[in-house]
Amino acid sequence: MPGKVYLVGAGPGDAELLTLKAWRLLQSADVVLHDDLVGREILGLIPASAEVENVGKRCGRQSARQEHIHERLVHHASLGRQVVRLKGGDPLLFGRGGEEIEALRKAGIDFEIVPGVTAALGAAAAAQIPLTHRQVSSALMVLTSHHASPDADPWPAQIPTNVTLVVYMPGYAYELTRSKLVKAGLSSRTPCAVISQASSPQEQIYRTTIGNLHLAPRLPAPTLLVVGDVVRFADHATLRSQLAAVSGQEPEFAPPAVPETFVSKEQEQVE
Amino acid sequence: MPGKVYLVGAGPGDAELLTLKAWRLLQSADVVLHDDLVGREILGLIPASAEVENVGKRCGRQSARQEHIHERLVHHASLGRQVVRLKGGDPLLFGRGGEEIEALRKAGIDFEIVPGVTAALGAAAAAQIPLTHRQVSSALMVLTSHHASPDADPWPAQIPTNVTLVVYMPGYAYELTRSKLVKAGLSSRTPCAVISQASSPQEQIYRTTIGNLHLAPRLPAPTLLVVGDVVRFADHATLRSQLAAVSGQEPEFAPPAVPETFVSKEQEQVE
Repeated sequence: MPGKVYLVGAGPGDAELLTLKAWRLLQSADVVLHDDLVGREILGLIPASAEVENVGKRCGRQSARQEHIHERLVHHASLGRQVVRLKGGDPLLFGRGGEEIEALRKAGIDFEIVPGVTAALGAAAAAQIPLTHRQVSSALMVLTSHHASPDADPWPAQIPTNVTLVVYMPGYAYELTRSKLVKAGLSSRTPCAVISQASSPQEQIYRTTIGNLHLAPRLPAPTLLVVGDVVRFADHATLRSQLAAVSGQEPEFAPPAVPETFVSKEQEQVE
Repeated sequence: MPGKVYLVGAGPGDAELLTLKAWRLLQSADVVLHDDLVGREILGLIPASAEVENVGKRCGRQSARQEHIHERLVHHASLGRQVVRLKGGDPLLFGRGGEEIEALRKAGIDFEIVPGVTAALGAAAAAQIPLTHRQVSSALMVLTSHHASPDADPWPAQIPTNVTLVVYMPGYAYELTRSKLVKAGLSSRTPCAVISQASSPQEQIYRTTIGNLHLAPRLPAPTLLVVGDVVRFADHATLRSQLAAVSGQEPEFAPPAVPETFVSKEQEQVE
């Protein structure tokens, strides 16, 4: 039987947000190559019969790492194995799935792509933020502030006000992010939210405005930034009930004034 | 037990692209309210014990339909039922999930959002188009040309060239779409693809350029339009092998010249 590579999206974190297809493919895989972003709960679903390789080591040059992944994919498939390449979120939105496809085509390896729930959707569900809304936002723009080449600035020169913006891997240079957003034409009063570890039990949501973004806490990675008027629709009830708890319980953060609010699943469970 | 509403994304069409969580919730649902877009294969997974309501009837005014959905959600949950509101794709990206959230909050109904694989990801996987690519596109913009109010034009005044654009429900006014894309600054040589019924056995992919978009066939809904240089990376091998077959087998379409190409899963199976 010839080998085959399945480029599979693992979703935003929660193992239950794997697709039925991703789950089925993991059950029959000979080898699973995964990123750092794929959590322990999901790795725990892989049967003991399968070989598991973490190809997402954060050390080392990005380009060397990517070539290594291509070599491993081709290596295993050439030996007739069923290979699952498990990537956080969706395999074709960020994460260099396109380069893996090209490497597989070049090597003449059969492959198939299995889409997954991308981080923006997981975060929106967690924070109850509609990414589009008839009265507020008619489009979604997704970009990452983390990019391969320093020349290629992914930030658009102008962001229309009726578009929801989601920034993957926004990092902690909030001051810079704020100035980029304002330069792109957004009002400093535009609401935004930093969402950390969405869909996991450690999930945290910090709601603020572009103007006060630099005061946001450094929440644990992976984080994601949602910008736009739709953020006003975020999880009202939870935000209200958490408001008092926040300023007392998180002394390392500057106590946020309204509309800055901080929601943590762990806090909810403690109370 | 108090009732609860789960706003659940059903994914792009293929039942195997449901999440494990969506599947689990369907198994224990008392009532399932679904859209027209949710296909028979997925509806077939609902146990006979659950009541099923199609709330997606295409007839009738949009606003009346939406209010009816809110009423039904509140009605069932108030009776203590576990309600799954099953929506095509993801519940918070288009499809008025935000309005359903507001109605549920207003009525004091407990609810939870379960994200799903949105159509853009399903279509990209089917056509093997990386939505972002280090050398070509650093951002994704998603919009729909179908909108509630005629005043609210969702098309951005300017679309940067290094952004992949995905248009949901592009309709068949290709001539108009072409002029909007060119007006927004894109070259008429920019590649694009119409993807029909992605992830289903009836899936079809038609690849062309903005300049020739008006010659594209009216493929069956749901369709989706992907615009940007990333379309060059689409499924090369299949496109090449289908090229000859197309002009002979699809006499109702104007035979497309390169780079216009037409891929149908059904044709692949026939050959």
